[in-house]
Amino acid sequence: MKLLYKGKAKSVYERDPGTLVMEFRDDLTAGDGAKRETKAGKGAINAGISARLFQVLQDGGIETHFLRFEEPNRHVVKKVEIVPLEVICRNIATGSLVRRYPFKEGQELHPPIVEMGYKSDEYHDPFLNDAIAMALKLCTREELERMREITLRVNDLLKGFLLERGIILVDFKVEFGRWDGRIILADEISPDTCRFWDAETRQVMDKDRFRKDMGEVLEYYREVQRRVLG
Amino acid sequence: MKLLYKGKAKSVYERDPGTLVMEFRDDLTAGDGAKRETKAGKGAINAGISARLFQVLQDGGIETHFLRFEEPNRHVVKKVEIVPLEVICRNIATGSLVRRYPFKEGQELHPPIVEMGYKSDEYHDPFLNDAIAMALKLCTREELERMREITLRVNDLLKGFLLERGIILVDFKVEFGRWDGRIILADEISPDTCRFWDAETRQVMDKDRFRKDMGEVLEYYREVQRRVLG
Repeated sequence: MKLLYKGKAKSVYERDPGTLVMEFRDDLTAGDGAKRETKAGKGAINAGISARLFQVLQDGGIETHFLRFEEPNRHVVKKVEIVPLEVICRNIATGSLVRRYPFKEGQELHPPIVEMGYKSDEYHDPFLNDAIAMALKLCTREELERMREITLRVNDLLKGFLLERGIILVDFKVEFGRWDGRIILADEISPDTCRFWDAETRQVMDKDRFRKDMGEVLEYYREVQRRVLG
Repeated sequence: MKLLYKGKAKSVYERDPGTLVMEFRDDLTAGDGAKRETKAGKGAINAGISARLFQVLQDGGIETHFLRFEEPNRHVVKKVEIVPLEVICRNIATGSLVRRYPFKEGQELHPPIVEMGYKSDEYHDPFLNDAIAMALKLCTREELERMREITLRVNDLLKGFLLERGIILVDFKVEFGRWDGRIILADEISPDTCRFWDAETRQVMDKDRFRKDMGEVLEYYREVQRRVLG
């Protein structure tokens, strides 16, 4: 297979025309790539979690790029044209939101906050608004509305699914692609791209364990996997 | 008169109930207050320019807080409830926009970009989006739409008025207040709050001369005043 793109945690290969293979690697990075580590097995755990969550979303009527899970660490996906935006949805204030604005750590957000960042290593994924996204010709106004709408549905579906399994969906990042003229969900949904807290103890179960040197990174990823697949 | 508020470049006093006096001081600050200077006469120049521009806007049908100019450096204004947002409108890419995103310096923006920042010294006036502004309870969705709409009309009116006087309106910042249940234009419009370029030479005629140590700050402010009042 031809390597098309190597990201921070995934490699993307072309298989047949119109079909890609996303390989989840064991690499963990944080702080805009400043901090790096490899945790054997992390890729397979995330591939498994993400496959299950994409199935939940598809069962809920959300169109995604996901075709099938090839164990241990690959997703076969539709070849979409990726929109270079990170769409973030927050149910609870933490992280950059409380650093940048006067929200209280742990404050619940009703309705959830959706924000967007421009996917660019050179510019360090800057936060932007609709007018800037359109001026940069990243997408149309209709696509922005559609991405926000799908993101809020993803949030509704995942929040419920995870809470039944004792996990609070604090916030998450998704990406979208254009396929057959439509905007559909792409990329991954995993402890690398979400904040998950244990519903009882509010223990951190996601990449913040790595970012903040909290230890037991893989142990908590495995616990998320166990609950999501169980 | 009772001093209500002392900002970086203006002091605000209460005169009668419902009426304030805005005093334009000679202080110049930049870099979030890190750089400070006093230029004798600057306050009066800005008060004169801003009074004329507010009259132009009122003549164009835009409701503002402005009641009258008391020479040399005071505006008598309606006492509005200030919305703690800075609304920025950009016709040409420069400054933070080209630092944060891949726009070319001097690139024309069609349509103009409107962005908003949260007015907060403690948080350094962070850029935000609609969802964050609403979650912080700074204003309603309808007020955000209304502020954007008025800002684009201000831009149309001022761009034309200034270009007839040989000045390009590169970008500007405005603020709004609530008055009698409506959103109306407040604050000032001056070389402290706009970027003005000479239409022939593209010479900088605004506070960037102070920010970037370009010299002749007051000379260029006076030239803007001469053209705007002439």
